[in-house]
Amino acid sequence: RSSKPPGCSPRFAGVAVPTGCAAGRAPRAPSTRSDIRDCSAEPPYLPPTATNTTARLAVLRGILRTHGVQAYIVPSTDAHMSEYISERDARLGWLTGFTGSAGTAVVTRDKAALWTDSRYWTQAERELDCNWELQRTTSIESIATWILKEVPAEGNVSLDPFLFSIDTWNSYSRALHGSGRTLLPLETNLIDQAWGDQRPPPSSSEIYSLPAEFTGSRWQDKVAGIRQRMEQHARRPTAVLLSGLEETAWLFNLRGDDIPYNPVFYSYTLLTNTTISLFAEQSRLSQEARQSLRSACPGPLCVELQEYGQVSAHLRRYAQGNVTVWLGTEYTTYGLYAIVPQEKLLEESYSPVMTAKAVKNAHEQEMLRAAHVRDAVAVIQYLLWLERTVPQGQVDEFSGARRIDAFPGDPHRGPSFESISASGLNAALAHYSPSNGSSRTLSAREMYLFDTGGQYLDGTTDITRTVHWGEPTPLQKEAYTRVLMGNIDLSRLVFPSNTAGRTVESFARRALWDVGLNYGHGTGHGIGNFLSVHEWPVGFQSNNVPLEAGMFTSIEPGYYQDGDFGIRIEDVALVVEAQTEKPFLTFEVVSLVPYDRNLIDLSLLSPEQIRYLNSYYEKIRAHVGPELRRQQLEDEYVWLQESTEPFAVSSAGSAAAGSLALAALLSVLLSGLGA
Amino acid sequence: RSSKPPGCSPRFAGVAVPTGCAAGRAPRAPSTRSDIRDCSAEPPYLPPTATNTTARLAVLRGILRTHGVQAYIVPSTDAHMSEYISERDARLGWLTGFTGSAGTAVVTRDKAALWTDSRYWTQAERELDCNWELQRTTSIESIATWILKEVPAEGNVSLDPFLFSIDTWNSYSRALHGSGRTLLPLETNLIDQAWGDQRPPPSSSEIYSLPAEFTGSRWQDKVAGIRQRMEQHARRPTAVLLSGLEETAWLFNLRGDDIPYNPVFYSYTLLTNTTISLFAEQSRLSQEARQSLRSACPGPLCVELQEYGQVSAHLRRYAQGNVTVWLGTEYTTYGLYAIVPQEKLLEESYSPVMTAKAVKNAHEQEMLRAAHVRDAVAVIQYLLWLERTVPQGQVDEFSGARRIDAFPGDPHRGPSFESISASGLNAALAHYSPSNGSSRTLSAREMYLFDTGGQYLDGTTDITRTVHWGEPTPLQKEAYTRVLMGNIDLSRLVFPSNTAGRTVESFARRALWDVGLNYGHGTGHGIGNFLSVHEWPVGFQSNNVPLEAGMFTSIEPGYYQDGDFGIRIEDVALVVEAQTEKPFLTFEVVSLVPYDRNLIDLSLLSPEQIRYLNSYYEKIRAHVGPELRRQQLEDEYVWLQESTEPFAVSSAGSAAAGSLALAALLSVLLSGLGA
Repeated sequence: RSSKPPGCSPRFAGVAVPTGCAAGRAPRAPSTRSDIRDCSAEPPYLPPTATNTTARLAVLRGILRTHGVQAYIVPSTDAHMSEYISERDARLGWLTGFTGSAGTAVVTRDKAALWTDSRYWTQAERELDCNWELQRTTSIESIATWILKEVPAEGNVSLDPFLFSIDTWNSYSRALHGSGRTLLPLETNLIDQAWGDQRPPPSSSEIYSLPAEFTGSRWQDKVAGIRQRMEQHARRPTAVLLSGLEETAWLFNLRGDDIPYNPVFYSYTLLTNTTISLFAEQSRLSQEARQSLRSACPGPLCVELQEYGQVSAHLRRYAQGNVTVWLGTEYTTYGLYAIVPQEKLLEESYSPVMTAKAVKNAHEQEMLRAAHVRDAVAVIQYLLWLERTVPQGQVDEFSGARRIDAFPGDPHRGPSFESISASGLNAALAHYSPSNGSSRTLSAREMYLFDTGGQYLDGTTDITRTVHWGEPTPLQKEAYTRVLMGNIDLSRLVFPSNTAGRTVESFARRALWDVGLNYGHGTGHGIGNFLSVHEWPVGFQSNNVPLEAGMFTSIEPGYYQDGDFGIRIEDVALVVEAQTEKPFLTFEVVSLVPYDRNLIDLSLLSPEQIRYLNSYYEKIRAHVGPELRRQQLEDEYVWLQESTEPFAVSSAGSAAAGSLALAALLSVLLSGLGA
Repeated sequence: RSSKPPGCSPRFAGVAVPTGCAAGRAPRAPSTRSDIRDCSAEPPYLPPTATNTTARLAVLRGILRTHGVQAYIVPSTDAHMSEYISERDARLGWLTGFTGSAGTAVVTRDKAALWTDSRYWTQAERELDCNWELQRTTSIESIATWILKEVPAEGNVSLDPFLFSIDTWNSYSRALHGSGRTLLPLETNLIDQAWGDQRPPPSSSEIYSLPAEFTGSRWQDKVAGIRQRMEQHARRPTAVLLSGLEETAWLFNLRGDDIPYNPVFYSYTLLTNTTISLFAEQSRLSQEARQSLRSACPGPLCVELQEYGQVSAHLRRYAQGNVTVWLGTEYTTYGLYAIVPQEKLLEESYSPVMTAKAVKNAHEQEMLRAAHVRDAVAVIQYLLWLERTVPQGQVDEFSGARRIDAFPGDPHRGPSFESISASGLNAALAHYSPSNGSSRTLSAREMYLFDTGGQYLDGTTDITRTVHWGEPTPLQKEAYTRVLMGNIDLSRLVFPSNTAGRTVESFARRALWDVGLNYGHGTGHGIGNFLSVHEWPVGFQSNNVPLEAGMFTSIEPGYYQDGDFGIRIEDVALVVEAQTEKPFLTFEVVSLVPYDRNLIDLSLLSPEQIRYLNSYYEKIRAHVGPELRRQQLEDEYVWLQESTEPFAVSSAGSAAAGSLALAALLSVLLSGLGA
């Protein structure tokens, strides 16, 4: 699962996004394609995939008038800055028809516009009707410039402050400052008013306690740990406010299913030095969960259960006292943030719950390792199945994705994201997932990339492998090998503790850089124990925290040749102490699936890289082999043995390698010349 | 010259500072040493190096009372946030007796305290008398906590806003916010009042125009370029405010000698879209300079000369209009910044003059290359002289430093910083420069590190070499080789354009990290053309700008073994286009002095590293050899040939290197074919 590029919306469901998000190909010239809209035609042409938004825009504009609002800004995220959202929060999708995961809409009395990044330009042209301008950028500066043009001076520009991050709010505020327009926060969401009873109802499924064997520690111990961090902080905060859904889920060892792929539930927590308030729909708590939370009542470990909607009022009351509220500014909404007076805020990028959650204890590490062994068995079954069935031409991207999602065994709780299954040129697309109707057939003449992950009660997994069952081109082989070299170089890196991920992620790129290649997405992201597949704040981007022993991160370099093929090799790795005199760190890779030997040009690897690869393969044999035997997957066992045969170190640097590399380079260079 | 660690004062004259500055060894237990003060003794013991500050503190406290001030904060920098300051600006040194380059003093009605980082703790104990508490940290939080303890509620905490950066001001402001104390900016500097007529007078030497052959372009063209950037900026700024001394010097091709080692002069510039105001002491301008600046008067290229002290009043008047003032927030003082209303400010980290200056044009590049050839001759002369004289036991650190400073030829304008010359364990000291009285004798039994640079009319140089004339220990040899590997790995890195230095500087550390070693300072810094030896904003730290072709930076990994030895290998390199299909970048090293063969363990180097080293040595021979011959330095020529003998590449030959070489070869081949 590829991590989001820096500076983009927290919700990112795609891969291979150009760094900076707004970057990308220039808009295409008008075409005669029938799959996208043509608003300059007479009458305007709309494909069947477009949504008629005339009626809903009329309703919304009536509401705007009622509130004296000239423009309303609609974001794509929810009140918890979640990466994935529920149907009920898909306000942008309902209003515009656009179903991409990232965008911003602005509706004025007579205009409507949608901003989204290059991943989604074609999709937007397929889904929007002609009520909508499409703006091919996502910069707030561009949105604000449009608003200044469309909204008269003295006009009100409004938004729901509970759907915007502090940073985004501040950017709009700065952009409108001194312009005469007012940025007007409205607690009533105007889209919800317009949506009315067509809006999907809130989830009513059970919020449950994780079985004790699947938790890292008791919630009472976690609360004590957080309170200790509060006491040790120089500013002596009296409370921590948790608004990230995975914060509350992790703290109390509770899970739900309000958000697809993420076992969380709508909630907030205000943890003070003497009280605990959990805001969630009380009626949905299982009896067991309720008992656990209430077992120490009254007292400092008694959880007061309050309705989800009460958080603002409660926080407002609390903030009247002599208090200091600690919150994470990276993901708290401006609405919540603005409730607490500035001098009573302790602002850090992440709450102590986020940073505590990031460092897994020994039991959590064991669980994540175990989940990855189970996941490896599923992926190996899939790889063998592909090897056998692809040559018959009966597998396409969609059926492949269904197959891999079906493989995992107990205690499996479904996929951790929508599997990516992409053949040939589709793997080079910035944002690709196959659908039942249009799905490319896998072939031994093409490369195939799949990126998949599971939710298990003990851990969340995420792995990408790229394979070729036939004769790869020299360029494919060289690019694959260089991506692998990057994966190896970062995985085997030894580095001081407290190193920021962004200062070492280039090791995953250098082998590509050497020949002028690169990839446009992040190099990795944290991952949870039966929580988010993209778990902040661990990773290699500038807003991630320094790497510490006990953190898990994906390592996933790639290479994407436009219109041709795509490669990504992704493993999950644990940060561990290195075997150095001083306590330096390194990675222990816990994903345990061999790479495609057919795509490795051994001559490019250094002896150290080959030795590393061999020791990794030894580990795969030792951990996955017995499990395959236990499950009586004998064919898979044989496949594993063959796939993990040690490579000969001496074969590195043979003269023959040079010509292969030369051919590959020639093809890169010639394609660049337009040949 | 080693660059400052992130998060420290801009004035950093030391090397090997632990990252974060405040880090370091724990304070030592009370000792019986006679070189440091002992304030707990009866009577207190003061070494002869301490300054009696009782009288000046009494004067200052009288002034504090007059102004109704309870505490006064005194920084170590000047009104231009200069790294080096003049004697006239050494307010902290005068007040406290402490002569280190970084620190902050606070004086209340009855207490006085100095904050400084671990480089200076011992020095402070030698120089402070017992009026002063020494605080072994530099965090503003710690200073503010002390102030809150010492200053009664409702008290005034004062400072000169023209001596503090915007960031530092904001930090104090936040820390005192809501505490009842007022942070009171006073434009009259109270130290200057107390210092009175004992304060050194301002420089009266000439401010002169650089001869045309030593400028990259005419100042009129530079002004036109900056105005073009203003027009192209989305915010359409009407003016650029320059407060960095090197900004004005570069823009107008003027130089002075107000600051040691840096050929700059006290000045500000307000460049608007129609006017140019240069604030400096007019009477000091050479006639030629005055003519050049006034030749197009009246008109948009007429420079209005105004007195240095007029800048605030002028800016205040200008800011009353319908204007937008662009300034660099990294180095503009809060005092200047606060003059312009918030909505009329265009705040970026660096002014367009700083970013334009960072990218050297072809002539500036040629000049810097030429200066480094001349500098290489001087360093090679020094190395050969050392080789011959050290065994006789007649060279010490101080006489060595004097010798190297004496070597450079025309057009030499003195050293670009105080040469570092450190033998044995002294080279491991965080902050070391020898003095005439206490200087270690160089010996063939110890390593010797020297870090030196010159000011030439065409360029500023900076180089560090570490040598051993005898039998190095295995650890010394391994550490030296790994430092060299880091230097090579970063120097030969190929990377995409617009890469931030901080994301690649780890390549200079990896060979050390592999065995659990590291260094605590930055990896490099920009450098000027007859300007600052540390020229912002180029470098490898988080507040540096992305690397672009035409920028120069030092590359200087090191290793410091406490109480034993110190290693640093520093070269200056130009960012150039790499021989890749896409316009990637790499470095061209312009420092041309061979490394110490005696300290290189060839078995640690990869074949690619050896090949790189051999090609670098070829370049040294090609560029420096003829110059040595021209100067009839025949012994040096022979020494150079011996020192640059190619190393044997082991027959193993890794193909990873081969492919890089092939890439370059092929690309050259194709471009030759007209591709």
